[in-house]
Amino acid sequence: MTLPIETPAVLVDIDIARRNIRRFQDYADRNGIGVRPHIKTHKLPQMAELQLDAGAIGITCQKVTEAEAMVDGSARIKDVLITYNILGKEKLARLERLNERVILSVVADNQTVIDGLSVHFAHAGKPLTVLVECNTGADRCGVAMPAEAATLARRISDASGLRFGGLMTYPPADGAARVQSFMSEAKRLIEADGLKVPTITSGGTPGMMEAAEAPITTEYRPGTYIYNDRSLVVRGVATWENCALTVLATVVSVPAENRAIIDAGSKVLTSDLLGLSGYGHVLGRDDIRIDQLSEEHGRLVSDGPIGLKVGEQVRIVPNHACVVTNMVDAVHVLEGGKPKGQWPIPARGCVL
Amino acid sequence: MTLPIETPAVLVDIDIARRNIRRFQDYADRNGIGVRPHIKTHKLPQMAELQLDAGAIGITCQKVTEAEAMVDGSARIKDVLITYNILGKEKLARLERLNERVILSVVADNQTVIDGLSVHFAHAGKPLTVLVECNTGADRCGVAMPAEAATLARRISDASGLRFGGLMTYPPADGAARVQSFMSEAKRLIEADGLKVPTITSGGTPGMMEAAEAPITTEYRPGTYIYNDRSLVVRGVATWENCALTVLATVVSVPAENRAIIDAGSKVLTSDLLGLSGYGHVLGRDDIRIDQLSEEHGRLVSDGPIGLKVGEQVRIVPNHACVVTNMVDAVHVLEGGKPKGQWPIPARGCVL
Repeated sequence: MTLPIETPAVLVDIDIARRNIRRFQDYADRNGIGVRPHIKTHKLPQMAELQLDAGAIGITCQKVTEAEAMVDGSARIKDVLITYNILGKEKLARLERLNERVILSVVADNQTVIDGLSVHFAHAGKPLTVLVECNTGADRCGVAMPAEAATLARRISDASGLRFGGLMTYPPADGAARVQSFMSEAKRLIEADGLKVPTITSGGTPGMMEAAEAPITTEYRPGTYIYNDRSLVVRGVATWENCALTVLATVVSVPAENRAIIDAGSKVLTSDLLGLSGYGHVLGRDDIRIDQLSEEHGRLVSDGPIGLKVGEQVRIVPNHACVVTNMVDAVHVLEGGKPKGQWPIPARGCVL
Repeated sequence: MTLPIETPAVLVDIDIARRNIRRFQDYADRNGIGVRPHIKTHKLPQMAELQLDAGAIGITCQKVTEAEAMVDGSARIKDVLITYNILGKEKLARLERLNERVILSVVADNQTVIDGLSVHFAHAGKPLTVLVECNTGADRCGVAMPAEAATLARRISDASGLRFGGLMTYPPADGAARVQSFMSEAKRLIEADGLKVPTITSGGTPGMMEAAEAPITTEYRPGTYIYNDRSLVVRGVATWENCALTVLATVVSVPAENRAIIDAGSKVLTSDLLGLSGYGHVLGRDDIRIDQLSEEHGRLVSDGPIGLKVGEQVRIVPNHACVVTNMVDAVHVLEGGKPKGQWPIPARGCVL
């Protein structure tokens, strides 16, 4: 079926997105876990509203400007966690303005960040809530040991302008046991020091259906689950049928019997591999590999005749949905399988 | 040195860019080759003007909307080649409007594209110039054999609304000999058929200083040469000192002695590897590897102590400059090593 949409284009099937939201919300509700979706996947206030409608307690953003775009875009977004170490005068000034508009919290994993936040918020009208980021195996940010988490919790609690909000981690997909042991020990130490630990927040779509295996978790921050992508299908946690985001492309050349070139390259599909080989899955064509991308061309190859014609459209599930929504100014929304219009993406490119 | 710029940010040193432009223009002038820079690297009308000032004969774009953004952005851009097979009503209508404003040419490597162009331009006020794209080893688009090029040249020449403009190729880095043999044979066949071959255009920064080894080439389309990047330094065709584009980032966490996390991830540096390992080069720190990116975090590791502090800035030469300018709405221009202001990037995200 040819869609009346100029290509390349990013399509979002809103019916599938709604089902994906519902599925995890139901799981979280059954297990008494709050859902705080990460908006990095969709970057759209409208999608955040669907998540809030389903029962989400608030949203997660990675950068201050993302939070600004989301709060500006929906008056219904009233509770935002920015899971990032925030540094620098301009960002702190933005943070202060946001903190006056919504229930805001951020994280810190080191004294320099706590000091910067405290110097700024000591003179602000309202204290800022700060959680301690903990490393439970992803080896990105986060304190390495529960004792360090307890030390920083005390320092946040003692710092002017700040309020200790709890513990945050972004674990590996199979990290539930490690989350449970790290967070239990950190909580014990912090409570022994006379502080409360209101929130213990974990995240990640690959491990979300095992979130309850770390029962200490009070809230969970899945991102990709709303759209799904090839990486999640390959991991076995999604199927092609529940991939809400696809890239629509047109075949522009069939220069050899087993090779076709499409008008979507790395500027739409991105070079993210996430450990996979190839740059996406052509729906309905298991035999095709997208073996090479340049910026505006994607190369499709097959072991046999490729059987595609110049001018034909293909739909591709990208390796990683989150990065694709950062490449275009708008997504085309499908409802009942039909194009319903374009939604501009206000939090695209918000890296500050 | 700490720059007063909010991070992450993309910096362009305009003095280095000017020197890079000059170096290739001088080579091309000595060898009687026209320079038609590909704007995909900078996406900026101002940079195209520097290239025209230096002696470029026009510009190259990959997509119709890129050409629109460049022509809208500078009245001095009057000659544009779009090196793409263009299909679809909306794009053809845009192409017709552009063709009325500037000297425009496009390419085709198949009959379907030629038919689409001809059906549209048969009724346009001005014919469209079409070159035949030839595959000289990159195995992306392009006809496989000189005889096919001659067949398409004849068909373009005979098609209403179209004018045959010559031959175009995007060869591999070491493709000069193949360009020379393919194009010589194609030209011979086309001329034997009674047609002229006004332009033979080749491109690619890695092979640009060997462009004259294919003396049949009348013009060359380098893109990355204006900024250079890590991929070109590793290939030995640039040095760190002539990399004009860098990413400025701030260390936000030093969670282990040999690991630091910066505020630039794949949303600025991109996941493009171009065959390299790691995601960029930290200037002045040969010992550091950027071994992992997530969207908003870059992970720096070293075999010994990383020796970076939270809050410190680093400057990174990315693997691939062209894709980085697609990730941000503006670049920070440096002149004499000092920030001179921001230039919005009008051709960012122009994938249609």
